[in-house]
Amino acid sequence: MAKRDNLDCFFSPRSIAVVGASPDRSKLSNIILKSLKNAGFRGDIYPVNPKYASVEGLACHNSLDEIKSRPSRPGRVDLTVFAMPAASVVDLVKEFHHKLRGIVIISGGFAESGLEGAALEKELKGLARKHSLRIIGPNCLGIYDTVSRVDTFFVPGERLKRPGPGSLAIISQSGSFAVIAMDVLADEGIGVSRIVSYGNTADVNESDCIEFLANDERTSAIALYIESVQDGKRFVKAAAACTKKKPVMAIKVGRSGAASSAARSHTGAIAGRYELYRAAFKKAGIIELRGYEDFLSGCKALAMQRPARGTRVMVITDGGGIGVSIADACSDEGLDVAPLTRETAARLESALPNFCTALNPLDLTGSATDELFAEALEKTLSEDHYDMAIVAALWGPPALTDNLAKLMAEKARSIDKPVIICSPGGEYTRSKKDLFMNLGLPVFGSPESAVRAASVLAKAGKTGGKGRAGLAGG
Amino acid sequence: MAKRDNLDCFFSPRSIAVVGASPDRSKLSNIILKSLKNAGFRGDIYPVNPKYASVEGLACHNSLDEIKSRPSRPGRVDLTVFAMPAASVVDLVKEFHHKLRGIVIISGGFAESGLEGAALEKELKGLARKHSLRIIGPNCLGIYDTVSRVDTFFVPGERLKRPGPGSLAIISQSGSFAVIAMDVLADEGIGVSRIVSYGNTADVNESDCIEFLANDERTSAIALYIESVQDGKRFVKAAAACTKKKPVMAIKVGRSGAASSAARSHTGAIAGRYELYRAAFKKAGIIELRGYEDFLSGCKALAMQRPARGTRVMVITDGGGIGVSIADACSDEGLDVAPLTRETAARLESALPNFCTALNPLDLTGSATDELFAEALEKTLSEDHYDMAIVAALWGPPALTDNLAKLMAEKARSIDKPVIICSPGGEYTRSKKDLFMNLGLPVFGSPESAVRAASVLAKAGKTGGKGRAGLAGG
Repeated sequence: MAKRDNLDCFFSPRSIAVVGASPDRSKLSNIILKSLKNAGFRGDIYPVNPKYASVEGLACHNSLDEIKSRPSRPGRVDLTVFAMPAASVVDLVKEFHHKLRGIVIISGGFAESGLEGAALEKELKGLARKHSLRIIGPNCLGIYDTVSRVDTFFVPGERLKRPGPGSLAIISQSGSFAVIAMDVLADEGIGVSRIVSYGNTADVNESDCIEFLANDERTSAIALYIESVQDGKRFVKAAAACTKKKPVMAIKVGRSGAASSAARSHTGAIAGRYELYRAAFKKAGIIELRGYEDFLSGCKALAMQRPARGTRVMVITDGGGIGVSIADACSDEGLDVAPLTRETAARLESALPNFCTALNPLDLTGSATDELFAEALEKTLSEDHYDMAIVAALWGPPALTDNLAKLMAEKARSIDKPVIICSPGGEYTRSKKDLFMNLGLPVFGSPESAVRAASVLAKAGKTGGKGRAGLAGG
Repeated sequence: MAKRDNLDCFFSPRSIAVVGASPDRSKLSNIILKSLKNAGFRGDIYPVNPKYASVEGLACHNSLDEIKSRPSRPGRVDLTVFAMPAASVVDLVKEFHHKLRGIVIISGGFAESGLEGAALEKELKGLARKHSLRIIGPNCLGIYDTVSRVDTFFVPGERLKRPGPGSLAIISQSGSFAVIAMDVLADEGIGVSRIVSYGNTADVNESDCIEFLANDERTSAIALYIESVQDGKRFVKAAAACTKKKPVMAIKVGRSGAASSAARSHTGAIAGRYELYRAAFKKAGIIELRGYEDFLSGCKALAMQRPARGTRVMVITDGGGIGVSIADACSDEGLDVAPLTRETAARLESALPNFCTALNPLDLTGSATDELFAEALEKTLSEDHYDMAIVAALWGPPALTDNLAKLMAEKARSIDKPVIICSPGGEYTRSKKDLFMNLGLPVFGSPESAVRAASVLAKAGKTGGKGRAGLAGG
C-alpha cells in the first residue's frame, strides 16, 4: 500500500480527469472543465465520456482505462473528479480503482442524505483504504488552488469571481461558505493560496489539510470552517504543530440546537458541544472566530497585515462618534484603547490645532487634513505604548484628499506595525476604498469589522504564528 | 415668554437665515446655503453678510435686522443658521435676539473644547432662556428633513448622498454618526422623515426631539444615538410615551473607559455608566442597539418591514453552511429557530426533492429553484408557528433567476409577516440586491446583519410600537 498521507495528488497534480464530462453547459461536469481551463491548469486535462469525441475543445476518452499519458504514478491519473449520481460514482471507483489516485467527489446523495447514502459512503471509504486512494468529498466543491491552478468549483465564473494568488488558505466543510468567502475575497482583491471544500470527509479531513498546509510554503495563514471534527486528538495535534509556524483561525458552526441538527443533515456529521471545540482551539493555539463576519474580517486582516505584538490600539479619526464606537467595540473584543502617555500627549498637543484634544481615541474633527492624520499616526503609533492603529478617516472634511492613503501607507511601513482603515459610508466613501487597499492597508466598512480584524491580528501575534510578515521575511 | 416646547421653528420653518453666508465654496456657510437650495426648501432663504450683494443667486442682507418678509412670528426669522467662530455667534445672538426664534449653531469651540468654550456655551444657554430662543447645537450639523425640505448639513452632495422621503427619523448627538447613517441609507435607497444632529445640547436635547417625533405623523420609527443624557427622568418619560406609539431604538456609546473620556471631549458631556442607560432603555421600552452595525441593521429593518409578532424565525437557504451560521446568530440574539411541527414537516417533505431534509434551517441545496424557495416559504411562514423568515438565497445554483425576488415579495405580502433576505457574496450577488430592495424586502450582506435586523423587528413587536405597518395602516 502506498503512503496514505500524501496530498500532492490534490495540490500539485500533473493530470486531471473529469468523469462524465459533457458539452451540456448546465451540467456540473461541463462547468468544472471550464473552471479548470480558466484557472490555467498546466497539466493534462482528460474529459471522460464514451458519448463524445471532444468536450470544450479537449479530446474526450471513452473510459478511465483509455487514459495513457503523463500520470506521475505510472498508469494512474493524479486527480479524478466525479460529478454524477452517488451510486454511479461508487461503481466507477470500484471498476477503475487501478487508474485512480486522488479523487474529488462533488456529488451529494451520500451520508448527508439518509441511510442508503450512508451505505454508499461506507463502501467508498472501504475502497479508498483497500486501493490506497485519497478522496476529497463527497458532497463538496473540491479544490481551488492558485499555486497548481486547479479549480474544481462548479459555480461558473460570472456568478463567482475567483481570487488571485496570495498566501491565505481556506479549509471549509461547507461548500457554500467556501464559495462566498472566495467571492468576497476576490471582490476585495485579496489573494489566496489554496481553498479546499471537503464536505463529508469520507477520507481527507480538516486534519489532513492542516498538516499539508502547515508545511506549504505558499501558505502563511489558514482559515477553517468546521461543522464537526471526527478525531479531536489528531485535530489538536495537527493544529498545534501548525500554529507554531503560521496562524490558524477557525469557526465552528452549529452552536445552537437548530443549527446543529441542520449541520448534521448538511454534511452527515454529528456536531459536538461547542465548549469542547473552544477548549480544543485554545489548546491548539487556534484563533476562535464566532461567525461569518469574524471569518471574513480575519481572512482580510491576516491576508493583508502582519500579526500585532499586543492588544494596545491607537484610534485616530475625524468623526468623534465613530471613534467612540471603535473604542466600545475594542472594549467588547478585549482590546486595549490605551490612554496616551503624558509625554506623547504633550508632543501631540503641540502638533494639533487648538480645537483638538490629545486623547485616545483621537478626534481630529472636521478640520482634519491629510498631514494632520499622518502626524497623529506617526506621533502615537511609533511609541512602544501601541501595537497597532485603527484609522477611521471619514470623508466629510473638505480638506482631505486622495493623498491621505499614500501618507498612511508610508507611516505604516516605516513604523512597521499593523494599520487598519475603518471607512463606513456610502458611494463616495466606497470609491476611496481601493486607494488604501492597493497600498496594502485593509479597509473595513464598520467600526465592529475593523475591530474584529484588529482582534484577530492581536490573537495571531499571541499564538506565535508569523503570518504574512513571517512569509515575507522568510 | 413664548411657549418653549415648540420645535416647529426647526421642523416646519417658513424662513431660514444663514449668517455669514459667503460665496467662497470652501466655507461651511456656502455649503449650507447650497444644501438648503438642493433640498428644495420652499420658504424664503436669507443669506446674511454685509460684504456681498448676493450669494449663490440669493439676495444677501447686511444684517439680521434688515430681513423683513414672511417670518411666521412677526419680526422674527423662523430658523437661523450660524457657522462661524464661537465668540462671534454669542455676540450676534446677543445683538439680534429680537430677530431670532429657532437657531442651529454648527460651530464648534464651545463646551467640548475647554473652559473658555464652556463659558461661551453657558452664556448662550442664558440668552436662549432670557429671549425665548430655541437652539440646536452648538457643535452639530443640524437638521435634514425631507418633510420640510430643510438641510443644514455642511457636507457637500458629492461626498454625502441625501436619503429620499421616508418614515424613519434619526436623532444623533454625533454629527459624524448622523452623516454616515444618512449616506448609507441613501445608498440603500431607504428614505427618512427627519434627521437631527444635535451636538452639545445647549438647549434642544434628545428628549425634546423624541417628544416632537412621537407626535409627528410623518415618522413611524426613531433611531437614537446618545453619548449622554442630562435629565434621565425626562428622557424615560418622553421615550416611554413615544414607544407606546412607535418603536424607538437607541445606541448609547462610551461603554468603555477610553470611549467615555473621548465622548466627554466630543460633545462636552459626561457619559454615565452603561448599566444605568440599559435600565432606562428597558423601562422606556427602547430597543437597545449595541453598535454601529446594530444601528444600521435596525434602521433598515424598521424602515422596510413591520415589527414581528414574536421571536420564532424560519430560515430557508440553498447553502447549508450559511443556514447554520444564521441559526447560530439567531441563538446568540435570543431568536428561536423553532423546529418544524410534524405536520409542516410532512407537508414540506411531499413538496421537496428527495435530497432535501425538512428541517429548520431548511437547506434547498444547489438544486434549488425559484419555485422551490416560494413553496418552502409559503408552507412554513404561513404557519402560526413562525413570526418571520430569513431567506438566504445564494446565487450559486444555476436554476435560480431574477424572478425569485418577485416570488418572495408576493409570498411575504400574502402571508403578511416580515421576510428578511440574507445575501452574502461579491459583485454578482450585489447586482441582485435591488431586485429585492425595490420590492420592499430588506437585503443584508451577512448572516449576522440579517439576524440583527430580525432581532430588532422582534423587539419592536414586543414593545408595542406599530412601526411602518402602523403608519401604513393608519
